[in-house]
Amino acid sequence: MEKVNLKATVLKKEIIKIFKRYGLSNSHALISANALINAELVGAYGHGLSRLKMYCDRISRNVINPKPNIKIKKISQSISYIDANDSIGFVAADLAIKKSIQIAKKTGIGMVAVKNSGHYGLSGYYAEQAVKKNLITMIYTNAPPAVAPHGALKSLFGTNPICFGSPSGSKIPFILDTSISMINRGKIRVAARDNKKIPEGVALDKFGKPTTDAKKALKGVQLPIAGFRGSGLAWMVDILSGVLTGGNHGGRVKDPFDDFSGPQNIGHLFITFKSNLFVKNFKNRIKNNIKIVKSLPKIKGVKEIMYPGQNKYKRFKINSKKDIKITNIIKKDLKTLLE
Amino acid sequence: MEKVNLKATVLKKEIIKIFKRYGLSNSHALISANALINAELVGAYGHGLSRLKMYCDRISRNVINPKPNIKIKKISQSISYIDANDSIGFVAADLAIKKSIQIAKKTGIGMVAVKNSGHYGLSGYYAEQAVKKNLITMIYTNAPPAVAPHGALKSLFGTNPICFGSPSGSKIPFILDTSISMINRGKIRVAARDNKKIPEGVALDKFGKPTTDAKKALKGVQLPIAGFRGSGLAWMVDILSGVLTGGNHGGRVKDPFDDFSGPQNIGHLFITFKSNLFVKNFKNRIKNNIKIVKSLPKIKGVKEIMYPGQNKYKRFKINSKKDIKITNIIKKDLKTLLE
Repeated sequence: MEKVNLKATVLKKEIIKIFKRYGLSNSHALISANALINAELVGAYGHGLSRLKMYCDRISRNVINPKPNIKIKKISQSISYIDANDSIGFVAADLAIKKSIQIAKKTGIGMVAVKNSGHYGLSGYYAEQAVKKNLITMIYTNAPPAVAPHGALKSLFGTNPICFGSPSGSKIPFILDTSISMINRGKIRVAARDNKKIPEGVALDKFGKPTTDAKKALKGVQLPIAGFRGSGLAWMVDILSGVLTGGNHGGRVKDPFDDFSGPQNIGHLFITFKSNLFVKNFKNRIKNNIKIVKSLPKIKGVKEIMYPGQNKYKRFKINSKKDIKITNIIKKDLKTLLE
Repeated sequence: MEKVNLKATVLKKEIIKIFKRYGLSNSHALISANALINAELVGAYGHGLSRLKMYCDRISRNVINPKPNIKIKKISQSISYIDANDSIGFVAADLAIKKSIQIAKKTGIGMVAVKNSGHYGLSGYYAEQAVKKNLITMIYTNAPPAVAPHGALKSLFGTNPICFGSPSGSKIPFILDTSISMINRGKIRVAARDNKKIPEGVALDKFGKPTTDAKKALKGVQLPIAGFRGSGLAWMVDILSGVLTGGNHGGRVKDPFDDFSGPQNIGHLFITFKSNLFVKNFKNRIKNNIKIVKSLPKIKGVKEIMYPGQNKYKRFKINSKKDIKITNIIKKDLKTLLE
């Protein structure tokens, strides 16, 4: 597929311009543009510009509120609750992680729940904010139906990522951001858009048969990791981010691309705490921990044992020095949205 | 293998007698006996009586302290820290879950870290205590090396369970208690003891070759679920329960059966919070959530879509009405320990 090169700074300005045209404030447009650019730079294209048009469409159709009246309620010293008022997900998540950081710094631990939000991109992106402040964070969000519960023939759970961030003792944060699906829904979407195949064993078509056709997989079900275990983890995330928070759950989160019948009302949960609550030398301990794992004998062909987040950081560093390559489809989206 | 039937009440008295003979106080012996009996009743034999002799041996060899001076330190309003002073794990875990419940009821969320503890059996057993009080809980503990990090040829992570408990709106609690290993180390140990095979694809022998021989698997490595993802989750648990708490980590937790060179110094982390922090009708919401999942179309041959904890509860109910069947090996252990 032909690609177009664009400087990140230029691209960012264009995205901000687009979001502002769709009614977002300066600061909300900036928060959203930064998240999209970051997704491109870490190579998570399914969470990047391939979603820009969708966000704008949802604003036009009144299912994302460009001028949300976001309310924060203090539940207790360590707990806050955000009603995002159908804001674009980036804005709600940015506010929530900042609030949980603030509370964690003050009381040791900060828990922030969000309701009436939307898709916010990569959980790891928000985790980084906490890790930079020397905090540990656990982030949960649900998503539209994509994965069939163990034993079921129909998708219900989202890819429901489990995200965990921790200082690593080095400048590359330890960020685990793993979906509970064998494959990311975003990756299937990009494959479908680019007419590419997906790997075997990660999805079934709508009749319950294995498929490598990305378009068929989007209409079928994605398989959870590790059967009953992965299904249980996805269910846990649905409870933590949906049932607990007042957000949608039980398969009721709408697909942002296909369903404009109402806001998504996604819920998120952020739990953030100080890394040195119990030990003074956390930094040395984690550094040592990572060093021990990295010095293990390796499987043939493996150059380095990587910790979660390392690969993404490397991609970010490399990509930050280059222009961003965007597909013609996205180029067209940008042109239309800027007109 | 021939088995002997024993009433649970009789068995419990015998275990209490044994633990007291080995120096445990009345209450510590009772806590430990209850945990072991519970493991037998839920069918988790690898965490039940097959471990009794090991605990006693560790007390005899001075690597479990039968008369621990356990210290609880308040870190902040919602956070406490327990130094278990090498107590038997059951006692430390029982204290920690009770403390986290107490804090959660008072402040909304309670986080309790434990260091200098040992193997405490099933995480789900402690989660039940919180769920009975209408709380949600997340429990992490590490364990002796059993699972190879992704890319490594040597075991380092424990089976490192992720445990999540939530009220379900019915009397059967939602308890996910899933190890990050394809198979439980306890199950391999029982298979080795009973000369049975283990399934394919769950373990490698010490040369890195797949094996179904339980004894070879014990000397080799267990495989993590879902490759890099499961490996990352196991690493997360090692950080949360070991690096953070001051417990052993990075493969330094000793195998309780084979290594008497010192205490295990296992760390645990308990995070417990109210289920109605953000919504008043949590009970109805979770009930509805479970109902929706259960009414999905099922894969051929599946009678009921089960939520985590349901099977274990059913086994408990059935087994509670019957005598406990113990193997001759365990019968012999009991006899020796009672002599």
